[in-house]
Amino acid sequence: MAAATPLLKDELDIVIPTIRNLDFLEMWRPFFQPYHLIIVQDGDPSKTIKVPEGFDYELYNRNDINRILGPKASCISFKDSACRCFGYMVSKKKYIYTIDDDCFVAKDPSGKDINALEQHIKNLLCPSTPHFFNTLYDPYRDGADFVRGYPFSMREGAPTAVSHGLWLNIPDYDAPTQLVKPHERNTRYVDAVMTIPKGTLFPMCGMNLAFDRDLIGPAMYFGLMGDGQPIGRYDDMWAGWCTKVICDHLGLGIKTGLPYIWHSKASNPFVNLKKEYNGIFWQEEIIPFFQTATLPKECTTVQQCYLELSKQVKEKLSKIDPYFTKLGDAMVTWIEAWDELNPTGDNLAKLSIADGPAKTKK
Amino acid sequence: MAAATPLLKDELDIVIPTIRNLDFLEMWRPFFQPYHLIIVQDGDPSKTIKVPEGFDYELYNRNDINRILGPKASCISFKDSACRCFGYMVSKKKYIYTIDDDCFVAKDPSGKDINALEQHIKNLLCPSTPHFFNTLYDPYRDGADFVRGYPFSMREGAPTAVSHGLWLNIPDYDAPTQLVKPHERNTRYVDAVMTIPKGTLFPMCGMNLAFDRDLIGPAMYFGLMGDGQPIGRYDDMWAGWCTKVICDHLGLGIKTGLPYIWHSKASNPFVNLKKEYNGIFWQEEIIPFFQTATLPKECTTVQQCYLELSKQVKEKLSKIDPYFTKLGDAMVTWIEAWDELNPTGDNLAKLSIADGPAKTKK
Repeated sequence: MAAATPLLKDELDIVIPTIRNLDFLEMWRPFFQPYHLIIVQDGDPSKTIKVPEGFDYELYNRNDINRILGPKASCISFKDSACRCFGYMVSKKKYIYTIDDDCFVAKDPSGKDINALEQHIKNLLCPSTPHFFNTLYDPYRDGADFVRGYPFSMREGAPTAVSHGLWLNIPDYDAPTQLVKPHERNTRYVDAVMTIPKGTLFPMCGMNLAFDRDLIGPAMYFGLMGDGQPIGRYDDMWAGWCTKVICDHLGLGIKTGLPYIWHSKASNPFVNLKKEYNGIFWQEEIIPFFQTATLPKECTTVQQCYLELSKQVKEKLSKIDPYFTKLGDAMVTWIEAWDELNPTGDNLAKLSIADGPAKTKK
Repeated sequence: MAAATPLLKDELDIVIPTIRNLDFLEMWRPFFQPYHLIIVQDGDPSKTIKVPEGFDYELYNRNDINRILGPKASCISFKDSACRCFGYMVSKKKYIYTIDDDCFVAKDPSGKDINALEQHIKNLLCPSTPHFFNTLYDPYRDGADFVRGYPFSMREGAPTAVSHGLWLNIPDYDAPTQLVKPHERNTRYVDAVMTIPKGTLFPMCGMNLAFDRDLIGPAMYFGLMGDGQPIGRYDDMWAGWCTKVICDHLGLGIKTGLPYIWHSKASNPFVNLKKEYNGIFWQEEIIPFFQTATLPKECTTVQQCYLELSKQVKEKLSKIDPYFTKLGDAMVTWIEAWDELNPTGDNLAKLSIADGPAKTKK
């Protein structure tokens, strides 16, 4: 390992949702070991998850979540990787990187291991350009700039709230596409980082994702999925839609592109289809809803924006399915729980949470 | 050369504005020779432009433009590469590719010569995705698809009207950036084609550009630049802003990315600054104007959209400078000239243009 201090070493947590031993961390050791991990154990809490030696982590299982959040634990999904957002909530750091446990270190075209986390940090630490498109991609990258015709007043850019990384090998396809193209692999390394323009929605994947908790954390709710819910595999999509609308409203940027991770294993398309099929119908109405959603000027914090969105969700999406009423309520619970665990000057006095994580290892 | 017939051989014209002998075509011979060229000679019409042997071309100088358009020739710029749009107007083909004479064949990372025209044709012949962002770039490319969360109802895409290619070596920078970074070269080959989302403007460069004349031709007016005008080097930008607003209104797509050409020579930044400086100020108001411009539903053809835009330009931009009144008028003249040279069933009867180009060589 390099002698230099890793970027943002004390300002970033890595959040990993899992149901198995975290052997995948071995490959990430050179890049992740300096950082603190927050492991959210999904499924049976009596199972022991093994974490390779030498990592600094805290681990929460369902019992911990229930104990820490009490009745508000209802907003955290069970038996779905949506549970990862609990990790965002208990973190005390400014930045989060979240990664799935079937994601490994990818190689760039020169054969060098890609330090995904380092690239995400670079993405987050330099501005985005949501208000005008730069044809040479990220103008802040070495060797690039704003092209002719890019308005000078917009070259300061916007603060970057989210860095969305991509995947080599198994692409993030839905069940129907998996079924139709079982052998398709992503082998194209696109050497670009770009801002998703204001007003444009995108499918945000939670597999390889980093964000600035201070700027956008409370919008990163992964919804109600999995056990007891009529839908799965839309947790990150839900977070992405809400996050994009709020970033657009607050003048924040979202980047996508580099870094790539190596996604090792396609999930079962039949199981996925069962989880997804409601989402496949519903998104045809949900996406137009988010495309036209507007937030009032009075909403100046992420929490205010998110609560306003929750109202609009209940008002406008409940006609699709009663699930959206429940989801709208859970969005409110999520914000209440977030504020409880993340007291600001205003609400610090009210707070008295004494519970720490179940297991902490340094 | 391959024995196979080149794509769209009889449906595409290559438009080249120039003031010098076209030696640069030698390098393009394997790719361009099967196609018809329209050469628009800028500057002194008495000068003879040499075209390498074996190319099929027609050439227009200023005298030809004046003769063919009569008083309407006033809408075609002189002493500025904006004059190229005359070539779009006299073409009778469905597709146009336009390229600058200081652009050469680039190599891909494997060292292979890039057939820029072939990639543009591929871009134009498959749909765009302006309504939702696909994180794996062009979903219609081999080895790619729509990612999870992309609404199925939007997967048909939109017809592609424009393909905007990029440049290796000398990037397309404005004069201030050229002055600040005289040695910066673009060496990053980004292996991607993507759609510019609906509602987002971009800086369209005319150096390496293809479009579907039937879909968007009349919007590709390169404005009043150069001789006698207070501005230069904004010809393609102007066309890009108008084109994007009209494509968004009509449900058409614009792609950017591949193919790259090799841009050989940076133009003089001091000369450029003189041409650009008004544009640098003005674009700060022009861009918000185009960002908020809307066209009424009744505008269903490119011509109708363009005439409506010309009105809005005169109404809203003339306060910046009287130039915009003149430009708005020229936009109308351009459409009149376009319709005269491109009669549809409706206006075929009115037409009696007998003039051909000055020199045609087969």
